[in-house]
Amino acid sequence: MSAASPLAIPFPHMPQIAGATPRVARAGYKDWGRCDLTFVELSKGTTVAGVTTRNVCCSSEVELCRDHLKGGRARGLVVNAGNSNAFTGYRGREAVEAIVAQVAGHLNCAPTEVFVSSTGVIGVPLPRDKAEAGVRAVFDATPCSWEDACNAIGTTDTFAKGATASAIVDGRSVQLVGIIKGSGMIAPDMATMLGYIFTDAAVDAPFLQQLLSAANDRSFSCITVDSDTSTSDTVLAFATGKAGNAPLRSFEDPGADAFAAALDDICRQLAHLVVRDGEGAQKFIEIAVTGAMNDESARRVGLAVANSPLVKTAIAGEDANWGRVVMAVGKAGEPADRDLLSIRFGATQVALNGLPVEDYDEAPVAAHLKGQEIEIGVDLGLGRGRATIWTCDLTHGYISINADYRS
Amino acid sequence: MSAASPLAIPFPHMPQIAGATPRVARAGYKDWGRCDLTFVELSKGTTVAGVTTRNVCCSSEVELCRDHLKGGRARGLVVNAGNSNAFTGYRGREAVEAIVAQVAGHLNCAPTEVFVSSTGVIGVPLPRDKAEAGVRAVFDATPCSWEDACNAIGTTDTFAKGATASAIVDGRSVQLVGIIKGSGMIAPDMATMLGYIFTDAAVDAPFLQQLLSAANDRSFSCITVDSDTSTSDTVLAFATGKAGNAPLRSFEDPGADAFAAALDDICRQLAHLVVRDGEGAQKFIEIAVTGAMNDESARRVGLAVANSPLVKTAIAGEDANWGRVVMAVGKAGEPADRDLLSIRFGATQVALNGLPVEDYDEAPVAAHLKGQEIEIGVDLGLGRGRATIWTCDLTHGYISINADYRS
Repeated sequence: MSAASPLAIPFPHMPQIAGATPRVARAGYKDWGRCDLTFVELSKGTTVAGVTTRNVCCSSEVELCRDHLKGGRARGLVVNAGNSNAFTGYRGREAVEAIVAQVAGHLNCAPTEVFVSSTGVIGVPLPRDKAEAGVRAVFDATPCSWEDACNAIGTTDTFAKGATASAIVDGRSVQLVGIIKGSGMIAPDMATMLGYIFTDAAVDAPFLQQLLSAANDRSFSCITVDSDTSTSDTVLAFATGKAGNAPLRSFEDPGADAFAAALDDICRQLAHLVVRDGEGAQKFIEIAVTGAMNDESARRVGLAVANSPLVKTAIAGEDANWGRVVMAVGKAGEPADRDLLSIRFGATQVALNGLPVEDYDEAPVAAHLKGQEIEIGVDLGLGRGRATIWTCDLTHGYISINADYRS
Repeated sequence: MSAASPLAIPFPHMPQIAGATPRVARAGYKDWGRCDLTFVELSKGTTVAGVTTRNVCCSSEVELCRDHLKGGRARGLVVNAGNSNAFTGYRGREAVEAIVAQVAGHLNCAPTEVFVSSTGVIGVPLPRDKAEAGVRAVFDATPCSWEDACNAIGTTDTFAKGATASAIVDGRSVQLVGIIKGSGMIAPDMATMLGYIFTDAAVDAPFLQQLLSAANDRSFSCITVDSDTSTSDTVLAFATGKAGNAPLRSFEDPGADAFAAALDDICRQLAHLVVRDGEGAQKFIEIAVTGAMNDESARRVGLAVANSPLVKTAIAGEDANWGRVVMAVGKAGEPADRDLLSIRFGATQVALNGLPVEDYDEAPVAAHLKGQEIEIGVDLGLGRGRATIWTCDLTHGYISINADYRS
């Protein structure tokens, strides 16, 4: 790993999750002398939900995930680091199918209960021999910690990213743990976002999918590092049911609200961690959009601001250049009225109803921009739609990392 | 001006255009001891067409341009450099209306025959006193060269950008000259794109608008530096009619094809010059998309590639990272099939029908990427739609320019 991001957060204490057992091994996908193959064994009855990239050039792994998610059941997860296996045609597909067959044989389960992700360089078929030897080795490995598993799924990540949450459901305490890797919203080479959440709660697969999709809309879909969408992005949630609660099937069930809140919480934590490890990031930026015609419109305006290279470089330069925020709002393609637009940096209003605020106090704005946590408020003055987007600044570090990556 | 872009091209020899007389003066919008107010007087009967930004937070100048374009007639153009007058509410509007009244009084023409553009920092109302004094001064100035006018409309531009074209229309030789400023597709501060084309041809305003809109679709709408769309972008074409040809009204008229080709040519030249002065640009990149479902789909795919920070940084690093091109195609939101996609760098095919080309010769690819002019070919294999997009790479220079601009 490179030097940890200045925005890094220590890996939290993580409980074991009954029914979810991580192990790691060395497949040697790259010449890097570290574990790069992760296997999580899941107990019988584990349900699964997932969200995957919308990039139409997605990897075989993503296609397989989507297919297997239809069954809603999981017994095993394999994550390969160092090779994304994207854009590798039938040979890439064969390697994934070999892994699935191997794991299904070992666990005596249906192939559709096995999930595989890969992350790393594009266009090089995943070497089937290394994968198969790695999988054999990982079956014999002793169980490891979630932090070990998190390190084994990482690539260009500068720190291990994990989060926990809990809830009381049906009188039982249920635990959630999550690990994630990614150092851009995406870079298709070695910074693909892969996230995994494990809980001992019992949740029926369709309801788990409903909750995960909703949480995703408020977390992973609201972050961006560089606007580039991976060919491999995947978030999976596994529920082993070992906590013993009556399975959650809808919001009518006791504790469903609490579980949904915990899932929201862990997704948001994990999403923030990805931004904090954004390539070259020096500042964590929250963009709160209010007054839009609806929530989706607010999200698009927020993403236009968050993806603007000019806004991101201004923040990197600690420059309260709100004119660039105006520009980004205007280019978003969403309903907006220049003469109703108001903009705030931190707690200080700098533009109100389409006009700069005369004589606003620049001192608190300058102080806010010197910090690591930046807040930009955009009020469109049109309706009740709102969204919060998180991103990082655009720095020389991003250029250095990406202008000379493959070599 | 900063050091000229390494992609700079010398200002060409430019003919005078009968009926279009440029003059420059110092309004002193900034403390920079150079001419920053340009006035072009146009003879009676001059027609005008224009295209303006789609940014909904556009400046008063843009609103006025759109309004005055309805008349199709022009007698005067004023360009202010150093202050974009965007997001300045009624006070900004008043300054523009004062300039229009002043010029209309001087030329004894209708206010709707006067066009005003401003470029520079956002959010500071254009100082009306400086504008009025500057306009008075420019009336008394002696006519200047197109190069002087080009320098006076520039802001962060690193070189003066002009182009010429000619055509035979109705048995007469007609001339076109164009000047442009801009150092990003846009930066709303000081790199807004403003372009002006002057011709002595006689062209009716509706037909001139039709030709300019079509040329714009193949030139200015096909370039991007940083995906950020200005609040002030404007391109205007003025036709004085002094060449004496029978006015062009449609493609049925003799020479209309030749004039359209010349207008296309000058627009493309000017658009390329803006890319060549892109902030931090070290390489000029052409992205040729073929095989799309239609031309507009091809344009969107090309722009997705051209706007991808990961593609742009890979080119900056002279890295044939075609996986990033795959990613960008996939995220464009347009019809694409991973297994039909082919990618070329320079003349070398690196991926064909969804698979990397095995054992392709890396030497010519590496040599091509070391050059200043980069070609990327993307074939989607779906249909006959095609588009060509031009952009520049994303370098440390871009970060340096934009992370510390306002201060």
